[in-house]
Amino acid sequence: MGIIVQKYGGTSVANVERIRGVAKRVVKTKEDGNSVVVVVSALGETTDELLRLAHQISPHPPERELDMLLATGEQVSVALLAMAIQALGHDAISFTGPQVGIVTDAVHTKAKIIDIKSERILDEIERGRIVIVAGFQGVTVDQDITTLGRGGSDTTAVALAAKLKADVCEIYTDVGGVHSADPKIVSDARKLPIISYDEMLEMSATGAKVMQLRAVEYGKNYGVLIHVRSSFSDEPGTLIKEGEEMLERPIISGITYDVGEAKVTILDVPDRPGVAAGVFRALADANVNVDMIIQNVSEKGYTDISFTVAKEDLRRASEVMKRIVSELGARGLTCDEEIAKVSLIGAGMKTHPGVAADMFGVLAEKNINIEMISTSSIKISCVIRAREVERAVRAVHEKFDLSKEQVKQVAGD
Amino acid sequence: MGIIVQKYGGTSVANVERIRGVAKRVVKTKEDGNSVVVVVSALGETTDELLRLAHQISPHPPERELDMLLATGEQVSVALLAMAIQALGHDAISFTGPQVGIVTDAVHTKAKIIDIKSERILDEIERGRIVIVAGFQGVTVDQDITTLGRGGSDTTAVALAAKLKADVCEIYTDVGGVHSADPKIVSDARKLPIISYDEMLEMSATGAKVMQLRAVEYGKNYGVLIHVRSSFSDEPGTLIKEGEEMLERPIISGITYDVGEAKVTILDVPDRPGVAAGVFRALADANVNVDMIIQNVSEKGYTDISFTVAKEDLRRASEVMKRIVSELGARGLTCDEEIAKVSLIGAGMKTHPGVAADMFGVLAEKNINIEMISTSSIKISCVIRAREVERAVRAVHEKFDLSKEQVKQVAGD
Repeated sequence: MGIIVQKYGGTSVANVERIRGVAKRVVKTKEDGNSVVVVVSALGETTDELLRLAHQISPHPPERELDMLLATGEQVSVALLAMAIQALGHDAISFTGPQVGIVTDAVHTKAKIIDIKSERILDEIERGRIVIVAGFQGVTVDQDITTLGRGGSDTTAVALAAKLKADVCEIYTDVGGVHSADPKIVSDARKLPIISYDEMLEMSATGAKVMQLRAVEYGKNYGVLIHVRSSFSDEPGTLIKEGEEMLERPIISGITYDVGEAKVTILDVPDRPGVAAGVFRALADANVNVDMIIQNVSEKGYTDISFTVAKEDLRRASEVMKRIVSELGARGLTCDEEIAKVSLIGAGMKTHPGVAADMFGVLAEKNINIEMISTSSIKISCVIRAREVERAVRAVHEKFDLSKEQVKQVAGD
Repeated sequence: MGIIVQKYGGTSVANVERIRGVAKRVVKTKEDGNSVVVVVSALGETTDELLRLAHQISPHPPERELDMLLATGEQVSVALLAMAIQALGHDAISFTGPQVGIVTDAVHTKAKIIDIKSERILDEIERGRIVIVAGFQGVTVDQDITTLGRGGSDTTAVALAAKLKADVCEIYTDVGGVHSADPKIVSDARKLPIISYDEMLEMSATGAKVMQLRAVEYGKNYGVLIHVRSSFSDEPGTLIKEGEEMLERPIISGITYDVGEAKVTILDVPDRPGVAAGVFRALADANVNVDMIIQNVSEKGYTDISFTVAKEDLRRASEVMKRIVSELGARGLTCDEEIAKVSLIGAGMKTHPGVAADMFGVLAEKNINIEMISTSSIKISCVIRAREVERAVRAVHEKFDLSKEQVKQVAGD
């Protein structure tokens, strides 16, 4: 009997009625002849409410205790879902991350999964039970509770699917799939039937909220077939799978945006070897993930270095940088939270050289200034003013005609 | 350095301001030169809210999942209190029951502590940290989460105090001590400066909400000095200690009441050996605690058996009894939830034979009918109609003049 892992996000279990709906869907999957492992997030806005409570207690709550606090949200969900499934006459059992041995490193609030001890889950599946696992959480080898960062339940689900060799990992969302742009901003955004791991990685990395980046990485590394679909209908959603398996694909998959980053610039850094390494080593040591990095060529032996980080890491990043600025003898530091990043993703663009020019062109037409640019073989990102983000997304989406099915090219072109 | 265990109930941590207040008190105890271990209950009404949620999902939620759900309440509290203490510049670390190895049996929703693995706590104390432990919860040898029943945080605290050989176990409450009667009903109820374990056991068993029965038993068995006191002032509260250590004591300590029980009567049971054993063995097997038991003498070879159980166990008790009724060939079964139990407690009463007569007399004067009576050497309990409970408590409290300091008798009289 094949195993299906299903992951339900916070909106899918936001109230009692929706929890009952999820229970019915899980039971149906079981009755269709599958073994089912369910991963659940915290109910609705629970995590944000707990965070607010923590910040009322302390402006900078210690991260170990934050994890202790936040992990309760998913524990509530799994217990309630187990009750709802049992009320339908099926056998179900809930577990916290620590109980099923989701072992992580000790980087609180953004821990990485090291191992999953799946024996207990397999035992319960063997007994015919539906197994429900709290997403987002794990435990260190010292038995301290950790969490995996925002969206971490996706990672729990994909990692479990990999470990249990599940047939598919279904990610249930309220948007029902991966779209060519955020449907909240672009009303005629198109749902993509299929997307490669690499494109999905870029989508997640550049702001698509539909799946956590780490979850996609995990899926790619272990070849987990992922199906992003709607928790409110039976329509097929978006399949995420290996690119080589796709016979033809569109040039552009979608456009994403991210207003969750801030830009840090170090002014007049002496331009000598090892400077960049020093800056970014210090940030890495402080567990700050850096996204885009730009260093201008210097004229008088000095240069500016700019980079972007998640807004929640800005305080930590700027503390580290204040120290570095004086060590390097740089002139100063500026922080800018009013930026947005707009990105165009598509595995086809590497063989279509005009894409970047078209994107810059449409932004120029709309009089939107580009402050930073970063590209990869399947992505182009531009940093602009935050207030212009919706206008930019709509303009680019329209320019590339993404609401229609795209021109196909054969893979490997 | 001596260890002090402090336990704070739900009202003591009902909001952010009160959590800060508790943090200050904990820090002060630490600064006074003690090692401090803190046990916390769930915030305010959290447990009741979680129960409501569970009952919206399922009329009879499975108890394993109920424990999974309820245990989150205390986990939230310990994390927030650790944050509040760290915000005051002191080192604190929080733990769930499972994390510090509070091992229990597998009787979900009313588990009993089997063992506490105190190494981790002692390690953290050694490092100078304030240790915060979630009350009310434990873990089975199979790693399933359990809870200890209503008021279970008291038991966690006293059991920890016993295991850690603490100097004292302080139980912080909003009433500030043990009173001669519930101050909400009897406005001039007196706070008792001292009470024996045995008297406190009877107080708890007969409805005093100030401490969980099992916690007092634990205290008595391990000789833990317990101090019940106010979380809102520095006034001394009530000391609970061995009776022999008290040089003199009042005849009557207090009066308690309990409206949380229901009466079950089995009608016309054939009066033959083994009948009572069969009835109460079946209830014990279903994990129903029976309080009072009355069996009338029979005339025609039939008798009635009445007993009281906690209202939350009534459904289970009546299911068991329906089966028993037909097995025994009894005539039928009645259940009555409109009862109250009023009890008079005092270690001195065993040498003062008129106490029972006085209690029955004052109830008769007030025209309150007594339906069941049960006595021990230091307690008299009467079951009456629930609607008459406040009148009964006030009348008995007044009759025995409990608002004044009582006539003393030398211990061992």
